[in-house]
Amino acid sequence: MLRTVAVVGTGLIGTSIGLAVSRHGVTVHLLDQDEVAARTAAALGAGLVGAPDEPADLAVIAVPPGAVGEVLGQTQARGLARSYTDVASVKAQLTREMLTSLPDPSHYVGGHPLAGGEHSGPLAARAGLFEDRAWVLTPSPTTSRDAVNRVFEMIALCGAVPVIMDSRAHDDAVALTSHAPHLLASLMAARLRLGSQDEIRLAGQGLHDITRMAVRDPGLWSDILQANAPAVAGVLRELRDDLTTVLGTLDDLSDAPRDMRSRTLKPVVDLLDDGAAGLAAIQGRRSADRETQVEVLIADRPGQLARLLDALRALRVEPEDVVPRLSPQEGTLSMRFAVPAVRAGRIVLELEQGGWDADSIDPASGARRQRAVAPPRRTGEPHRGFRESLVPARK
Amino acid sequence: MLRTVAVVGTGLIGTSIGLAVSRHGVTVHLLDQDEVAARTAAALGAGLVGAPDEPADLAVIAVPPGAVGEVLGQTQARGLARSYTDVASVKAQLTREMLTSLPDPSHYVGGHPLAGGEHSGPLAARAGLFEDRAWVLTPSPTTSRDAVNRVFEMIALCGAVPVIMDSRAHDDAVALTSHAPHLLASLMAARLRLGSQDEIRLAGQGLHDITRMAVRDPGLWSDILQANAPAVAGVLRELRDDLTTVLGTLDDLSDAPRDMRSRTLKPVVDLLDDGAAGLAAIQGRRSADRETQVEVLIADRPGQLARLLDALRALRVEPEDVVPRLSPQEGTLSMRFAVPAVRAGRIVLELEQGGWDADSIDPASGARRQRAVAPPRRTGEPHRGFRESLVPARK
Repeated sequence: MLRTVAVVGTGLIGTSIGLAVSRHGVTVHLLDQDEVAARTAAALGAGLVGAPDEPADLAVIAVPPGAVGEVLGQTQARGLARSYTDVASVKAQLTREMLTSLPDPSHYVGGHPLAGGEHSGPLAARAGLFEDRAWVLTPSPTTSRDAVNRVFEMIALCGAVPVIMDSRAHDDAVALTSHAPHLLASLMAARLRLGSQDEIRLAGQGLHDITRMAVRDPGLWSDILQANAPAVAGVLRELRDDLTTVLGTLDDLSDAPRDMRSRTLKPVVDLLDDGAAGLAAIQGRRSADRETQVEVLIADRPGQLARLLDALRALRVEPEDVVPRLSPQEGTLSMRFAVPAVRAGRIVLELEQGGWDADSIDPASGARRQRAVAPPRRTGEPHRGFRESLVPARK
Repeated sequence: MLRTVAVVGTGLIGTSIGLAVSRHGVTVHLLDQDEVAARTAAALGAGLVGAPDEPADLAVIAVPPGAVGEVLGQTQARGLARSYTDVASVKAQLTREMLTSLPDPSHYVGGHPLAGGEHSGPLAARAGLFEDRAWVLTPSPTTSRDAVNRVFEMIALCGAVPVIMDSRAHDDAVALTSHAPHLLASLMAARLRLGSQDEIRLAGQGLHDITRMAVRDPGLWSDILQANAPAVAGVLRELRDDLTTVLGTLDDLSDAPRDMRSRTLKPVVDLLDDGAAGLAAIQGRRSADRETQVEVLIADRPGQLARLLDALRALRVEPEDVVPRLSPQEGTLSMRFAVPAVRAGRIVLELEQGGWDADSIDPASGARRQRAVAPPRRTGEPHRGFRESLVPARK
């Protein structure tokens, strides 16, 4: 059982770990060569400033990636803790070096919580930073089971989900999902440096989203790129090839006759389609559940649909998942949306209770189905009368 | 005075305009070749389905950019309205074509509201979509003043800010701030299409931000790129040059001796610095006001700082703008942050009322200054006693 944790480095990640595990009664010791950072973390409630008198159960080395090896060696030599982990975003080179350089490599487990934010430093920290996020561990065959289990316990207290990975596979994955995108955001932002006032004035939400992750701390990223250069270069090389395709096509466009332009643009449209597929791949992770279609009829009066969208949001159905359609027979407007099959019955029931004419759709026939669950009634009122009285009147 | 508006094309933008101007009592007529879209917009409260009996004061052509010219010509020929505008994101080519092809070009003003979202279609619409956003107009020397003034009125009802621009300068600006970034988001997302389950699992918030604007509607973007290809290509070519610099440097890194790696990486770090400067350029637009530094002392007890950050958020001061420091004399922890000069007095007062030891900083001396405004008192209580009783006790 984890009773004491030493956090070395009280930036965003270290302070957030301190806040998260302190909540559960773990005693946290905060160390940072910058006294202001350590005292700020303590004032937030992340723990006590200073090293413990006895070895902590676990030390988390949360210093910049280029310093992790040295700090791990020093803290293990002075016996700060019984087990050690780190939070650096590149793992293969570090894990390899630690196996030969640490006094006792079996008590070190490489770690990388997949969490962060735009802002760094202890003031940006929060206890919930890691909730439901993946936290990669890269143990080697000689890593002690006790060390791994202590880190598991800390991850659980942080509300994160442990993922065991080979360190090389981890580094390739983050090159694709984090390092290359950060660099790309920086390159796009660099283009804006010399933008005129008029140009900057036209910056919309999309530009802010795309450039938000531009690197603010080149020192940290110098460490990351040094440790993961070949994998990052691999992703960027493919990106440059695609960019070359786009440029060639845009250049061809000016020579193409007007009626051939759409055809000339095909290689770009193919890439845009690939992009839409990639976006679906990263956004669609949670939609693997079995789903049921639900339909709600809309009375032909202004405001009814806005009211329905509010009701759906309260049921965690977002407008972008709602598809409007006209019923072929009656010309009635209705809204269809997919919900997890296990929640469909409850959602239909709640909509009916709110006065909506809602039903789930039989996947075979595509028609509204006879409900297995009886709709709610008011005491003493017949079922039909209840529903009709609440269904919004049609024109 | 604007009394009737015809919206042709009830997607995200058209429906949002309908919702925004309807709020202010303008009668809106909704037209769309897709009956479901028009009826959905009407059910949301954006207006009435169908053309007006008499010409509307203003018609807004909110169809896909490739169709704007044709629809403008048709609607003006049948006399749908007295003035016309559109919302296409590329203006130079269209404006040039309209000057020669429209029955009466003087009653058309090119327009482009700088607003949008991830999702399209009427269900994604909202009345507040344009609030405080720029709305570019590209009138020509022959455009009638009445037409421009009617569009100004609509923009005001939408809560947006009109910006008059030359159509070519507009297209260059959006190539930089919108078209190139959207393409880049797509290219990054395309790289993820073949990502493994493990890789996709490591996708963090940053990746979602960067790829959120990946193109979901290649048809729309085919129109946009055809109309603005040279400007977009210009931005992407500079981006590719920077990417080539990054790739060359990353390749050099593997041959560099360990102590030379930081120096080898310099060209990349320079680009990252440029990116940080570009980010500051687009994010710093609102910080041109004169600012005053405020300092708040923190008692050395866990939780005090978290409580202060909550209080500051309520005063619209975000944690990322707060800088911790130690006072040199007493070793006390304090937090400093900049606020607009006009709000500083009120913020200090409210913090004091909440029991904090807060003060503004004299820019010349860097020290806390004597307040001009007297701090609040409870009736019957001397001033000193009040403040001391509420200031958190120090250890």
